[in-house]
Amino acid sequence: MHENITIWTLDWVPMTNGPAGFVRDMRLRWACEEAGLPYSVRTVPFGEGGPDHLACQPFGQVPFMSDGDLNMFESGACVLHLAEKSEALMPRDPQERAETLQWFIAALNSIEMVSVPWWFLEVTGAKENGLTGWLESRLAHMERILNEREWLAAGRFTIADLMMADVLRVAKLRAFGDRPAAEAYVDRVMDRPAFKKAQADQMAHFEAADAVRRQAES
Amino acid sequence: MHENITIWTLDWVPMTNGPAGFVRDMRLRWACEEAGLPYSVRTVPFGEGGPDHLACQPFGQVPFMSDGDLNMFESGACVLHLAEKSEALMPRDPQERAETLQWFIAALNSIEMVSVPWWFLEVTGAKENGLTGWLESRLAHMERILNEREWLAAGRFTIADLMMADVLRVAKLRAFGDRPAAEAYVDRVMDRPAFKKAQADQMAHFEAADAVRRQAES
Ligand SMILES: N[C@@H](CCC(=O)N[C@@H](CS)C(=O)NCC(=O)O)C(=O)O
Ligand SMILES: N[C@@H](CCC(=O)N[C@@H](CS)C(=O)NCC(=O)O)C(=O)O
Repeated sequence: MHENITIWTLDWVPMTNGPAGFVRDMRLRWACEEAGLPYSVRTVPFGEGGPDHLACQPFGQVPFMSDGDLNMFESGACVLHLAEKSEALMPRDPQERAETLQWFIAALNSIEMVSVPWWFLEVTGAKENGLTGWLESRLAHMERILNEREWLAAGRFTIADLMMADVLRVAKLRAFGDRPAAEAYVDRVMDRPAFKKAQADQMAHFEAADAVRRQAES
Repeated sequence: MHENITIWTLDWVPMTNGPAGFVRDMRLRWACEEAGLPYSVRTVPFGEGGPDHLACQPFGQVPFMSDGDLNMFESGACVLHLAEKSEALMPRDPQERAETLQWFIAALNSIEMVSVPWWFLEVTGAKENGLTGWLESRLAHMERILNEREWLAAGRFTIADLMMADVLRVAKLRAFGDRPAAEAYVDRVMDRPAFKKAQADQMAHFEAADAVRRQAES
């Protein structure tokens, strides 16, 4: 199959306190950069998703991706798909692959499942955040684990680290006390050239979009 | 590799208002039943996980699984691993596989990521549940989607349905108004012999454990 990867993201996001640098197309850009897979980026309008958008991402969100004739949504599913293309993202040895899968899913279903709803309650101004204790306990487990190892799976960088670091970097680790091992881990993973390239490209994308919008308004 | 699947769950759970029938080893039992893979079940003690337990499941939870020499945790990762063994769980055609993956991850990272924290706030007695609107909107999207199709991916039962139905059956659909398509979908998936077998086996496991405990107490 002819590989022709297109990553879809938003055409604009607010630049203050904003999501720029954190929109989840980051995960796809980053995976492609790690694997050396060429890709292009296209956009859908910010705001309520219309029928065309819902046909590509049924919750009206981003990212979604096409790879030749193949279309898919959910950043986690897209990264798994990309990982099948490159050993740089996921080892082929069965035990190492199992380790990678378990930590990849743990990022999505044990950490992000608590950190994102916690953050949602924070930004929507809930009087008390009933998820704080749960998130604290999850981060304490991660601190213990990251104290013992450099990478989560297979003794090397994999999509498990890509996903876990992306989840942890928004989890406001410092708000829950000292987390030196988790902070060092996030720094270590974010120091990878592929991450930096993906982040710089996403920032450039949203800065250009914002400049166009400000010009149109003035 | 000699396949020798062992599914680990808890040795006991409370039988009133309890999790029996819902503990996530269900997902692994069910996948094995669908695929015709033989397995045995072993247990860890209910309550705070000690070091041995944390070595197998770093958050002190269940399930975890071994398959020959290979060990893994996270129900989502275990089901993905099992799906590699049987086309009954995941189609081999690339587009159908992509569809299966995207809905499988959507169950874990777009629906359960809202429904489980919502439920957590309910059971821990939060004064107001700040996640209600978000869950309502996710369930409305699912209702629209399930109105249009019988199965989520590839026009047939896959692990996408296994995971989505398992997530939706605990999401208290009725609390959010009429959801006829989602309810019919959950009923349809739960009507599968493999689901019924897995659920009956889990119930029998916890009922036997409870009988032993009550006898010891009397
Ligand atoms: N589980 C989804 C979550 C996607 C998600 O939260 N997307 C955000 C951007 S990072 C979004 O589209 N927000 C705009 C909206 O919800 O309207 C995934 O990982 O793809
Ligand atoms: N994301 C994990 C969640 C596991 C989970 O929530 N396990 C529950 C049982 S269904 C558990 O072990 N609860 C006991 C506890 O947390 O101490 C997975 O899917 O494996």
